[in-house]
Amino acid sequence: MSGLFGRTLREVPAGIEVAGHGLLLRAGFVRQLAAGIFSYLPLAKRSLDKVSGILREEMGACGGQEVSMPVVHPAEVWERSGRYEGTGAELVRLRDRRDRAMVLAMTHEEVVAGLVAEKVGSYQQLPRLVYQIQTKFRDDARPRAGLIRAREFTMKDAYSLDRNETGLDRQYRAIHRAYFRIFGRCGLPAVSVGADVGIMGGSLAHEFMYLSPVGEDTILLCDTCGYTANRQVARFRKPQAGVEEQRPVEKISTSGANTIEALARLLEIPESRTAKAVFLVATVGGEERFVFAVVRGDMDLNETKLANAVGADGLRPARADEIRAVGAEPGYGSPVGVAGVLVVADDAVPGSPNLVAGANQDGFHLLNVNHARDFEADVIADVAAAREGSACPECGAQMRAERGVEVGNIFKLGTRYSEAFGAGYLDRDGERKPVVMGSYGIGLGRLLACIAEEHRDEDGLIWPISVAPYAVHLVSADDGADRLYEELISAGVEVLYDDRRESLGTKFKDADLIGAPIRLTLTTRSIEDGGVEMKLRRETGSRVVPVEGAVAVVKQRISDLEDEILASIPVPTNEP
Amino acid sequence: MSGLFGRTLREVPAGIEVAGHGLLLRAGFVRQLAAGIFSYLPLAKRSLDKVSGILREEMGACGGQEVSMPVVHPAEVWERSGRYEGTGAELVRLRDRRDRAMVLAMTHEEVVAGLVAEKVGSYQQLPRLVYQIQTKFRDDARPRAGLIRAREFTMKDAYSLDRNETGLDRQYRAIHRAYFRIFGRCGLPAVSVGADVGIMGGSLAHEFMYLSPVGEDTILLCDTCGYTANRQVARFRKPQAGVEEQRPVEKISTSGANTIEALARLLEIPESRTAKAVFLVATVGGEERFVFAVVRGDMDLNETKLANAVGADGLRPARADEIRAVGAEPGYGSPVGVAGVLVVADDAVPGSPNLVAGANQDGFHLLNVNHARDFEADVIADVAAAREGSACPECGAQMRAERGVEVGNIFKLGTRYSEAFGAGYLDRDGERKPVVMGSYGIGLGRLLACIAEEHRDEDGLIWPISVAPYAVHLVSADDGADRLYEELISAGVEVLYDDRRESLGTKFKDADLIGAPIRLTLTTRSIEDGGVEMKLRRETGSRVVPVEGAVAVVKQRISDLEDEILASIPVPTNEP
Repeated sequence: MSGLFGRTLREVPAGIEVAGHGLLLRAGFVRQLAAGIFSYLPLAKRSLDKVSGILREEMGACGGQEVSMPVVHPAEVWERSGRYEGTGAELVRLRDRRDRAMVLAMTHEEVVAGLVAEKVGSYQQLPRLVYQIQTKFRDDARPRAGLIRAREFTMKDAYSLDRNETGLDRQYRAIHRAYFRIFGRCGLPAVSVGADVGIMGGSLAHEFMYLSPVGEDTILLCDTCGYTANRQVARFRKPQAGVEEQRPVEKISTSGANTIEALARLLEIPESRTAKAVFLVATVGGEERFVFAVVRGDMDLNETKLANAVGADGLRPARADEIRAVGAEPGYGSPVGVAGVLVVADDAVPGSPNLVAGANQDGFHLLNVNHARDFEADVIADVAAAREGSACPECGAQMRAERGVEVGNIFKLGTRYSEAFGAGYLDRDGERKPVVMGSYGIGLGRLLACIAEEHRDEDGLIWPISVAPYAVHLVSADDGADRLYEELISAGVEVLYDDRRESLGTKFKDADLIGAPIRLTLTTRSIEDGGVEMKLRRETGSRVVPVEGAVAVVKQRISDLEDEILASIPVPTNEP
Repeated sequence: MSGLFGRTLREVPAGIEVAGHGLLLRAGFVRQLAAGIFSYLPLAKRSLDKVSGILREEMGACGGQEVSMPVVHPAEVWERSGRYEGTGAELVRLRDRRDRAMVLAMTHEEVVAGLVAEKVGSYQQLPRLVYQIQTKFRDDARPRAGLIRAREFTMKDAYSLDRNETGLDRQYRAIHRAYFRIFGRCGLPAVSVGADVGIMGGSLAHEFMYLSPVGEDTILLCDTCGYTANRQVARFRKPQAGVEEQRPVEKISTSGANTIEALARLLEIPESRTAKAVFLVATVGGEERFVFAVVRGDMDLNETKLANAVGADGLRPARADEIRAVGAEPGYGSPVGVAGVLVVADDAVPGSPNLVAGANQDGFHLLNVNHARDFEADVIADVAAAREGSACPECGAQMRAERGVEVGNIFKLGTRYSEAFGAGYLDRDGERKPVVMGSYGIGLGRLLACIAEEHRDEDGLIWPISVAPYAVHLVSADDGADRLYEELISAGVEVLYDDRRESLGTKFKDADLIGAPIRLTLTTRSIEDGGVEMKLRRETGSRVVPVEGAVAVVKQRISDLEDEILASIPVPTNEP
């Protein structure tokens, strides 16, 4: 401790909302350089190295080979995959000294596909799994929660390369399992949830979620059958409407009832008997398109589902003037009689007869609007949002909603990138085919921050032994434990020795703050009590062990703690 | 080999000038993504990890603690040290989504000083040494020679923090010594040379040079006393002029003699009896300033020395119109009679009487120009360039010039950065003082490329065991050596097993190309000969060892090769 670079702080810096991050700052693990940009001090670097070690072992066990790809890419590479234009401001664009457009990479599908195009020729060179642990930059609009949502971060990104979908399925499943081992070994509880493919494209994606109120994602979980999904893609059983005759359309005055709630109250009907209109402008293939979305009044629109249904790269709310330009009216809109717009109806709408919809006129609604008879949707799809209490799509039980932090993601990419980069191979049958790709990410800093958030109390951090910067924190009066320290080091124990000229109280406070799993105290008092006091950071009690055998006892305790973590690795849920 | 990502190429890609780089490309170690931007494939990553391991051990032995600092910095940080404006286009400037100016870091003095300002408070927290191994970007105008001069690169950069100059001297010397161990352990011959401090500022710098024709630096070496320096700063003993009476100035016609050579020939005098004028425009503190440099005709101007003498951030040749605007004449310029310019004379000029100088008039020169009597230099300094054959400044022996690649550099920074960032500490005497800093860099990719350049033959690479991707390359017909492979792996030997369905000839070619130090061949033929053929890559002969004891023999050979490298670590030269 007397030689450590970095020092602990007594107070949490101002403006810190996430407790774990506040402790990482106070304990001297990290320091912020700018919004979302951090330096890792020696304690954090040690923990990160342990996380990296676990990642390397588990990727290696999946057959992964480590590579290192560049951070700065020429823009052409991203243009070729369509992501230069298709990605928003989170992709940092810059120009080099010769005015060539470059980007700071957020992910490496393009570069991998380019490598494959040169380095893979035959089916005999497949399957492969390559990965790297590397710096990335994503210019988040709202960096927050410290390392949980940083702009610069270190990522383990892996890419699977296969001959066909069957091979991809196999590697995807293997990595899904490896991710459970990774988070388990790091001591972080995480669940796998079905997820949106987002800017990656491809056919299937899962996210690994650390369930915590600090998360910004919402996850729907069914405790009965185990279905879990990010709200962005969560399906649910929609309440069926009753069967009844279609009645004639009737225009009524509903002045002031410009919300579903007000309308249902005014007409004394359930919200499920109304149609809700949402006006959006979608960017599809670089062009803006007005989208008129219709869901039943008892449901909300899910914008991710809608974007996927219409193939949009981006969505924004329509302005009032844009809404009126297509013949609709804010607060009183309906798909009946509008022209030149893309009408998207939730798949519950066609089966719901005689809905109350807007009349596209201020203060008026239409009774008995029926799909097919009164309007025709261009797209019918599931675009409604699941929420707390929605019925599970698999078993019908009520689902619950939880907040979560995405600590890992896996994507089945298919051939999108390999086709763009000519990453093909000659198959056994002599035919040239595109390599089938998958992509698998884990952010190291975010993972570390989630571990800190999960394992802490009011006094500080409580590291799982597998990712602790040191296994042991040795406290003594001044430097009175030099010999024990040397013995521990000789025995290969990672020990942080507080040899400073500080009070025991200060040293205990810092030990609790830094959070090594085992604290050893050697003082005149402890020797009177029989030797060295050994205390687990997570427990309040302690025991005294004779100084002579202390090293062996400590090594055994470390080994027990390691076994405990391995034994607690969860069974994979939501296996794809 | 059947599972390795990457494959060997039979031909060197077009346009490759550096043989070692060509082999790295052919052997499947690296691939270029853009000018000066490379991906490292699994073989290279393995070698890089070994280099990193050596760096970590040697930095650790110096008391270094590993940290990890960001790649993207806010521009303010660089403005504060004066390097945002003071650094040229090699510093990549960009804007984030909120239009804040950022840079891609080439080095981290600013960030370290900022960390110190927060994390160091007392003299008891000094000295310290922190380091990182991290991605950097320097937008070189002429990226060339593959990894030797890349734009994106991984660097080990270390920063020493001390109470005073004595502490800095101690750490500087320790790291100077550690660098000899590092290059020695990597099998790279390197010499330490005195160097320019460049954009780092500070008082003293050394570069570690790998002497090779592919280098772009020129180093002056004295074989008699051991003096070595980069030409940019190399001193030398200048031939003394004879003592003689000052004679009156005389203007003569010298039409057509607008070079020193032509002038000396025309007047039948040695070049040392002439004065050479060089016209430059220097950027000093953001302003352009016309500089009139004068060296004796038998010497050349050294622009680095000149820039240091006048404190210039940049220098460019003056245009003819700029030269005439100050009253001089290209080809016939002299400091006599010019006005409003900064006259800098080499320190050999004042002691050289009766020189022939230009008359600032086309076709005319002045005889018998004498410093002090006919003109007065604003600055007198050593601004002449040492060259092959110049006399050593220490012992007077003739020096030789060699080309070199800078593989490492160390700088005494002093307090420039700590003062800019308020990185001070409270000394024992209660006084607040700035931390005294040093900075120490080694580029990993360049180091790897130099090792490849040094250790190769026409068939491929010949890795030193310490940085080889694999110690052993195992060749057999098809997969006939599976058992031996398993035994080697179990014994902890790093072995690349060529189990492909290729001819033995192809396998031998690839083994030579990839360059593992030891090749083992197990075939029906080798078994007839008595077992496994063991051959060192660097030797032509081989021996056959029985299959049973083969693993032990191989392990012993590996250990011998490791010892050989450790025994060959050179004695530090040029110790500061």
